[in-house]
Amino acid sequence: MAGNTIGKIFRVTTFGESHGKSLGCIVDGVPPGLKLKKKDLQKDLNRRKPGKSKYTTKRRENDNIIIMSGIFNNITTGTSIGMLINNNDCRSKDYKNIKNIFRPGHADYTYEKKYGIRDYRGGGRSSARETTMRVAAGAIAKKYLFLKHKIKIRGYLSQIGNIKCDFKNWDIIEKNPFFCPNLLKIKKIEKLICQLKKKGNSIGAKITIIIENIPVGLGEPVFDRLDADLAHSIMSINAVKGIEIGDGFKVINQLGSQHRDEMNKKGFLTNHSGGILGGISTGQNIIINIALKPTSSIKVCGNSIDNNGNEVKIITKGRHDPCVGIRAVPIAEAMTAITIMDHLLRYRSQCYDIL
Amino acid sequence: MAGNTIGKIFRVTTFGESHGKSLGCIVDGVPPGLKLKKKDLQKDLNRRKPGKSKYTTKRRENDNIIIMSGIFNNITTGTSIGMLINNNDCRSKDYKNIKNIFRPGHADYTYEKKYGIRDYRGGGRSSARETTMRVAAGAIAKKYLFLKHKIKIRGYLSQIGNIKCDFKNWDIIEKNPFFCPNLLKIKKIEKLICQLKKKGNSIGAKITIIIENIPVGLGEPVFDRLDADLAHSIMSINAVKGIEIGDGFKVINQLGSQHRDEMNKKGFLTNHSGGILGGISTGQNIIINIALKPTSSIKVCGNSIDNNGNEVKIITKGRHDPCVGIRAVPIAEAMTAITIMDHLLRYRSQCYDIL
Amino acid sequence: MAGNTIGKIFRVTTFGESHGKSLGCIVDGVPPGLKLKKKDLQKDLNRRKPGKSKYTTKRRENDNIIIMSGIFNNITTGTSIGMLINNNDCRSKDYKNIKNIFRPGHADYTYEKKYGIRDYRGGGRSSARETTMRVAAGAIAKKYLFLKHKIKIRGYLSQIGNIKCDFKNWDIIEKNPFFCPNLLKIKKIEKLICQLKKKGNSIGAKITIIIENIPVGLGEPVFDRLDADLAHSIMSINAVKGIEIGDGFKVINQLGSQHRDEMNKKGFLTNHSGGILGGISTGQNIIINIALKPTSSIKVCGNSIDNNGNEVKIITKGRHDPCVGIRAVPIAEAMTAITIMDHLLRYRSQCYDIL
Amino acid sequence: MAGNTIGKIFRVTTFGESHGKSLGCIVDGVPPGLKLKKKDLQKDLNRRKPGKSKYTTKRRENDNIIIMSGIFNNITTGTSIGMLINNNDCRSKDYKNIKNIFRPGHADYTYEKKYGIRDYRGGGRSSARETTMRVAAGAIAKKYLFLKHKIKIRGYLSQIGNIKCDFKNWDIIEKNPFFCPNLLKIKKIEKLICQLKKKGNSIGAKITIIIENIPVGLGEPVFDRLDADLAHSIMSINAVKGIEIGDGFKVINQLGSQHRDEMNKKGFLTNHSGGILGGISTGQNIIINIALKPTSSIKVCGNSIDNNGNEVKIITKGRHDPCVGIRAVPIAEAMTAITIMDHLLRYRSQCYDIL
Repeated sequence: MAGNTIGKIFRVTTFGESHGKSLGCIVDGVPPGLKLKKKDLQKDLNRRKPGKSKYTTKRRENDNIIIMSGIFNNITTGTSIGMLINNNDCRSKDYKNIKNIFRPGHADYTYEKKYGIRDYRGGGRSSARETTMRVAAGAIAKKYLFLKHKIKIRGYLSQIGNIKCDFKNWDIIEKNPFFCPNLLKIKKIEKLICQLKKKGNSIGAKITIIIENIPVGLGEPVFDRLDADLAHSIMSINAVKGIEIGDGFKVINQLGSQHRDEMNKKGFLTNHSGGILGGISTGQNIIINIALKPTSSIKVCGNSIDNNGNEVKIITKGRHDPCVGIRAVPIAEAMTAITIMDHLLRYRSQCYDIL
Repeated sequence: MAGNTIGKIFRVTTFGESHGKSLGCIVDGVPPGLKLKKKDLQKDLNRRKPGKSKYTTKRRENDNIIIMSGIFNNITTGTSIGMLINNNDCRSKDYKNIKNIFRPGHADYTYEKKYGIRDYRGGGRSSARETTMRVAAGAIAKKYLFLKHKIKIRGYLSQIGNIKCDFKNWDIIEKNPFFCPNLLKIKKIEKLICQLKKKGNSIGAKITIIIENIPVGLGEPVFDRLDADLAHSIMSINAVKGIEIGDGFKVINQLGSQHRDEMNKKGFLTNHSGGILGGISTGQNIIINIALKPTSSIKVCGNSIDNNGNEVKIITKGRHDPCVGIRAVPIAEAMTAITIMDHLLRYRSQCYDIL
Repeated sequence: MAGNTIGKIFRVTTFGESHGKSLGCIVDGVPPGLKLKKKDLQKDLNRRKPGKSKYTTKRRENDNIIIMSGIFNNITTGTSIGMLINNNDCRSKDYKNIKNIFRPGHADYTYEKKYGIRDYRGGGRSSARETTMRVAAGAIAKKYLFLKHKIKIRGYLSQIGNIKCDFKNWDIIEKNPFFCPNLLKIKKIEKLICQLKKKGNSIGAKITIIIENIPVGLGEPVFDRLDADLAHSIMSINAVKGIEIGDGFKVINQLGSQHRDEMNKKGFLTNHSGGILGGISTGQNIIINIALKPTSSIKVCGNSIDNNGNEVKIITKGRHDPCVGIRAVPIAEAMTAITIMDHLLRYRSQCYDIL
Repeated sequence: MAGNTIGKIFRVTTFGESHGKSLGCIVDGVPPGLKLKKKDLQKDLNRRKPGKSKYTTKRRENDNIIIMSGIFNNITTGTSIGMLINNNDCRSKDYKNIKNIFRPGHADYTYEKKYGIRDYRGGGRSSARETTMRVAAGAIAKKYLFLKHKIKIRGYLSQIGNIKCDFKNWDIIEKNPFFCPNLLKIKKIEKLICQLKKKGNSIGAKITIIIENIPVGLGEPVFDRLDADLAHSIMSINAVKGIEIGDGFKVINQLGSQHRDEMNKKGFLTNHSGGILGGISTGQNIIINIALKPTSSIKVCGNSIDNNGNEVKIITKGRHDPCVGIRAVPIAEAMTAITIMDHLLRYRSQCYDIL
């Protein structure tokens, strides 16, 4: 059973490899009657796009989205929406040398062992390029959620290496190439990345997602809790190694009297829970922290083996991000939006009578 | 769409409230031909059982498992396995006072708002009592995985409050009531819990799960990666607020050259990835860290509101664990086993030709 | 991947063998706030119950339904509903002789070959006894559909052998043991069945299901059309060999100008389509015809083989219905109700904005 | 919840409207290592293709399939396969007149009422053009099933109007434009269709699908029986109104002693069951009969209403098949193949240990 679909009611199914003809997806379950234009999707795709600044990969893709179906006169019809992005700037030659070699930290070894074959060009299906279609599908969800419920799903870079980027305001985020919410940290980040590029190395990052204006009641206990489904969708993003809801790992050292969110007439007094109790949204902001590992494609020489088990030394060529965490911001927003949208539709289906 | 089922091929569906007649589940997709007796399940249920020591809730339940179907002459037949545990020691009177009040940190508020009705007795469906059937179902998976592949799934308490329990050996774990892997820390934990009980307070915890002898190749990119599905199943456990695979949040501050696991002829040289690359198991140990919040049922007075929005003060009576993290060890093992089992069967279905 | 669950939003999962301790099911996705008592379920269970007349099997089961969860003060809470029926009148000894023999027309051979093991007692999981839980789950759906939408789902015996029972009125149906809608045919049926019992033989039947007051709009093209999902759920009933929607096989010889249902201001002028166009309900009555094969458990001697491939002669003992089609009426109603309920909830989830 | 996906392990998701840019699908769960070229798919697409003879619609589409992903050096990699067919010969102008009118027998009315909007051009998503992607996906399944198990899935026209086409041999079928298995009937069919075209009318048909060399053991009781899943997938084809397995509706008038298939050392003596017992394949040929209604797009004037409820007279223009049943042969083969493939993979996942 393959795993290229996410969501149960709002369903996203994707295909495509890094150096294949195209990347594509089908979004099923989109409510009819939603105004939807190409530019609604292109905006987020451009935020994710490579080659925008000297701080990300130099691969240049216009990531021009083509909507194939499900929309008539710019309105969704309730039928499945097919979308496509063609790959333009593949340099498959760069990858000939890794045809038989497993790059450390990459999925080369596991794909080869699992399937007995792999498309080695640009990492094939395991490439971060796969995430374009997540962003496109997520943009549909984002638009619907905001239009109908004013739900906002936004993220930012909250840490890179040891540089903590405490949140100042949302406006800053779109005005720098790092999705950093704090002007004072931008110079430091620039410096860090330049150093890493010089050394051919990379660094990890933490990003934070905030969901505002979410209604109380989303989430389906006991297994499809909202936090559980968010954990699934976010951990499915390349390079994610940890996820926290609300206080996350800080709870280990908290007392019950500290952690529990008390209430008064006006609502909750605190938000340690991160907006989810018993797997169901409380109506407070949902707060998610995500840890992303450093890019494995670096120019520092490393040890590995080839398909035949022989030991080799390898330097990963190609054009890569020194920190994949940066461009992960729109991707994590998209995955969050897909899951929230799915749960909004699930909520309506069972609880229709009391809405 | 309700969420009481987990797994796609090995499927577990549960029902039951804290103070209802019974808790039950149906496990579908169990391979035929597996020797399975009641005692195989009872062993793990007893590890999770309340009332075993003075350090956990005093509610006394024998948690006697009844297998209703799917087994003939102690061998699984391939048909669905129905199981039941009857509730014996309910004290529903304890909960009359919270009939109209939302206990802080509990799911009372969210269930009421979502469904317009809730079974307030003992927390109803949101009670940790629901996890018994997870343990029963997980025990079937554990048995199969060990018998056929020597896969071991085991957990321990790695931190409680600020007491870190560094791993010594597995034998210790079953010989103390805390699943602590380090004899030197047991006294400290006892003291901490006694203090908390005196104050009517509670504390968070971290637990660690290790999967040994797992074959390379489990996990279904791009959405049903092994890590994503593990994140889902573990985050679906009551009180879990964070999950890490391998180095987890430590990756934020790692360089690519530090994090990536290099290889030589004998295999991987390190295991920063925690045994999963590109969403597929590498064959190394899978390492999972989990953060659990402190019990919200405490005797420290707190502020809340009632069903009508009036402000109230509340002290949570009833019999509760001062640290839910402790008994979560067998539950997290069970959820891990369910997910690994599901992925083993998924792996076989698609990759049968190369096995 | 096992197949003991039906429905995507309204989900029914069952377990249980003919001679096991109990039969049970979990119904997930039931809307909260529905008044539901045991008697709501028992009524349909009694209609299906064996041993009611001399025209069905003599096995006497009270089929007393026990609701274990999901209901609080007789109102559904939105959590999963667990239900149980205990087996009382098993005569497993009757089946010792078929331990190693494949009864012709039964699932003995296929279960043995598929799973390598089978519970031969009473046919195990393949027994019609499994359908009790379908009826119980279906009764929940029926109650909701009628209460909220006045949707009525009713069936009758439309043919048995060569006796055609043209519909007269619904009242007659519940007043004879055959669910026959025509008083003039009852004597003939009684005579037919008495003859068959004397000869130890059995006969096929056709039943008809009518759904009234169904809203326009149910069904999810292109694969989960309402007719496709009805075909699935009804064909999943033991002994069903054919299904028709509307004119069914009669369309082979119809002209387009005869078949298509024209419309005027008041609605459709005819109902050849059987209430479904393009996989979506039209709002007209949905009409389904179902063919059920004759019981394979007969006293006429037949040829078969045993587990070792040796040829044997066999007479099937035990207590059996001379026509399984009769008791299939409440079962087919239940399966229809489950599917309609599932699609009602699906409809709401996607089309909420225009409802 | 939308319904554009079929299958649980071998999963096909489609998109596309009759007059949209393209039709497309994603096939997930294809085993890795299968040799697959464009021509493997094109062959069946050409069999389904419109405009091949004067007996089908004159719309000319080359139905040129483009494989976008999931194949590397002509071998499947285990990742999802994206496929595309561009629409070339749309005459959307032909449909302007039905923009606000519900064509009798079509899905115009139900789509409009369900979604509040519809792409009226060529019937939009409800067009038979949607089935191209079923044929493409089914061709992958067919290739795998034949290569690995010699399973053959083939169909023929068994009746059109009152012309019964009793089976002679498979070779004839591909040599006439009607998939008729009997040379003696071809002239009659030609004559019938010419008459219908002259009158602008249409006719129903029956087609038969035979599955040969299927292993014993496929099918997942109790709900996902092989016959139930076949009924689902086949009833999901446009225009299908009835389905039979084996003797189908003939069983109504059969005795148990006639119907049950007896066995001797060499196997089954008859095949009344149509190759499925208890929802599981017996290893005999699976025999399926399907009834397809006459095309609703005819030139005979009919009564209908428009979007505002006004009564109108309508003649359906455009280019249409006088008998949709003819081109349904490759479509029904494809849907059958998809379901058999899905069940083969399901079978392996649960019963791996005894294979």
